[in-house]
Amino acid sequence: MAEPDSDSSTTCSSTTAITPSSPAVGYSRNVDPQDLVVSAQRRQKHVDAVLDRFFSLAKNRASAIGPRYLTLWQTLEKNTAGGKRFRPGMVMGAYESLGGTDFEAAAHVGAAFELLHTALIVHDDVIDRDFIRRGGVNVSGVYRDIAQTAGIPIPAAEHRGLSVAVIAGDLALFNAYRLIDRSGVGELMRSRLHDIFDEAMFASAAGELLDVDFSQLKSMPTVEEVVDMERLKTAVYSFESPVEAGAVLAGASDEAVRALAGFGRNIGIAYQIVDDLLGVFGDEAATGKTTIGDLREGKRTVLIAYASGRPEWIEISRWLGLPDLTWEQAAVVRRSLEDCGARHYAEELAREFANRAAEELASDALPDRARAEFEPIIETVLGRVR
Amino acid sequence: MAEPDSDSSTTCSSTTAITPSSPAVGYSRNVDPQDLVVSAQRRQKHVDAVLDRFFSLAKNRASAIGPRYLTLWQTLEKNTAGGKRFRPGMVMGAYESLGGTDFEAAAHVGAAFELLHTALIVHDDVIDRDFIRRGGVNVSGVYRDIAQTAGIPIPAAEHRGLSVAVIAGDLALFNAYRLIDRSGVGELMRSRLHDIFDEAMFASAAGELLDVDFSQLKSMPTVEEVVDMERLKTAVYSFESPVEAGAVLAGASDEAVRALAGFGRNIGIAYQIVDDLLGVFGDEAATGKTTIGDLREGKRTVLIAYASGRPEWIEISRWLGLPDLTWEQAAVVRRSLEDCGARHYAEELAREFANRAAEELASDALPDRARAEFEPIIETVLGRVR
Repeated sequence: MAEPDSDSSTTCSSTTAITPSSPAVGYSRNVDPQDLVVSAQRRQKHVDAVLDRFFSLAKNRASAIGPRYLTLWQTLEKNTAGGKRFRPGMVMGAYESLGGTDFEAAAHVGAAFELLHTALIVHDDVIDRDFIRRGGVNVSGVYRDIAQTAGIPIPAAEHRGLSVAVIAGDLALFNAYRLIDRSGVGELMRSRLHDIFDEAMFASAAGELLDVDFSQLKSMPTVEEVVDMERLKTAVYSFESPVEAGAVLAGASDEAVRALAGFGRNIGIAYQIVDDLLGVFGDEAATGKTTIGDLREGKRTVLIAYASGRPEWIEISRWLGLPDLTWEQAAVVRRSLEDCGARHYAEELAREFANRAAEELASDALPDRARAEFEPIIETVLGRVR
Repeated sequence: MAEPDSDSSTTCSSTTAITPSSPAVGYSRNVDPQDLVVSAQRRQKHVDAVLDRFFSLAKNRASAIGPRYLTLWQTLEKNTAGGKRFRPGMVMGAYESLGGTDFEAAAHVGAAFELLHTALIVHDDVIDRDFIRRGGVNVSGVYRDIAQTAGIPIPAAEHRGLSVAVIAGDLALFNAYRLIDRSGVGELMRSRLHDIFDEAMFASAAGELLDVDFSQLKSMPTVEEVVDMERLKTAVYSFESPVEAGAVLAGASDEAVRALAGFGRNIGIAYQIVDDLLGVFGDEAATGKTTIGDLREGKRTVLIAYASGRPEWIEISRWLGLPDLTWEQAAVVRRSLEDCGARHYAEELAREFANRAAEELASDALPDRARAEFEPIIETVLGRVR
């Protein structure tokens, strides 16, 4: 139920930009960027190994049932592979920077968040009727194509694709939980991690519900409502819960856990607002994200919620949501969004949340190593605002 | 992902007939039927209490997020209520008849299977594009109607209904797991129960996938393939896994667990085949299940798979799957299904699996009390075959 397809390409590409790991992260105050790159590559390898083992096991079980089921698991695995493992990176970054040394346990918890992410985007694509993600066919797309090849016409073939995607998402969701069970931690720790994971899922479902309402109901949400939806739908399970889980797993103090969770919550919101900005004013070449998709979709973003109260709205609303919006018309909408101050407002709001994140990260309860680990994310988010 | 809507009414009504609990169950060799009724009512109360507590907690959390989320949880609760708690009855029947005394733990495991059932049928309805279940609107139906009241036209309103149902099913699926965590059992037991639960979910997803293929691909499955699909999709999580979980929770011997699981697997298959028979030849007044729905849907059942190899198929295939099939045409199909021996074959096959179930139940590893508990189910399944 995570980020809409339009986001996902950002998540994908901008992950490159904002993972602590990434070479794209230029400088950081307390650490040699090269160290971040190395540790991130090690983490990613570790998480990939956990997921490889999980899928090999599942594929063995599936092939005992039949070739069709094996194909479904192979498709699910393909849809889990290829990401930058951003969420596991958050888990392991928090864990290691707070002194954790059981990398295997951390990799399992990271993998659990990655599989949760897969489940949420697979079902989000069902809800958005998307058959493409990251430039390739998603689970729905694969099964739609299989059906068409078998001679089933659209829209029946599309429905078959979406049907199988419902099943695939259920399998990923259900097994995400299991990966925490397999982390090998003691009962009390497992129960704390399950609670955090539960909170992430609980929030994400609430955010997806609000997103469905915003996109399908006529009334325009307020800026506050949009921010809340973005926090619930994506920021909690992508930022706040992963760092919280990593900190708890490291045995950090309650104060340290609270501070790092607060950092995650605020930087996650800032990230989503920047995502809204890049969806309209971004540099497609740099972000890999279209700057006309959100406008054609009429997506309820912070920009749109702000603008809807302004005189320029009369002009904007003429074009917003036209599936065949031209680049000329999009340019008019962009200009109006600037004129009414929506762009400036969103940029300020993103900065405000990024600054709150920085304040949390400055907590005495956190070691410098945690700041070294996560400051680059703040730098990058701010760096992406004009 | 569980039984199709057409089944559900049977599951619902015939549950009345086949729950150990039910007054409808006439006699049983080793026990006063009245005892069964009383214990079943106690079990149902206990499971309902666990589910009430679970939903109260969830609704409190949801209302802290917002009224829309609270409404979703209330809708999910309504879709979980009203059942006969058949699966919990299987768990607790196995548990108690094998000497278990921690009713609270058994009720939690039973509630977990009930919530899994809710998740599976909610998503099954998404896949089947059903908006009605048990004569009332399901989650999809509730949200389709809310959308229509808000002025959203069909099919957008329908899509909104299905979108919210995807979210609701995810919440039920995810939390089913959590109910086992809350059963209060030790770590080793919890892990064994999770494995059984995992197996149930793994099988159900495989069965749903096969069902989607059978209903959407042109090729006709064999009788063996249909039986396998019905076992995976419904029998495992409704019969085999619940009694296995109950037996394991009771600390029964591996032999006893194997025997009871074997009983559950076979009686579950027999039950599904009888369900296919009642879907065409049943007494609507008695079963509450339409006898024309499966024919109009062209559902791949044991009857149809058998008939497809017979000369009468030419006649049957003329009418099968016509959405507006008349009662006269349905009568023609029924006659052909009798003439080609499909009805007789299905009845014999159901008896064969019921007899296998009886053999498993006769195992020396099982106490008489287990036979007293579950023989009524065999009696009832056989009693529903002409």
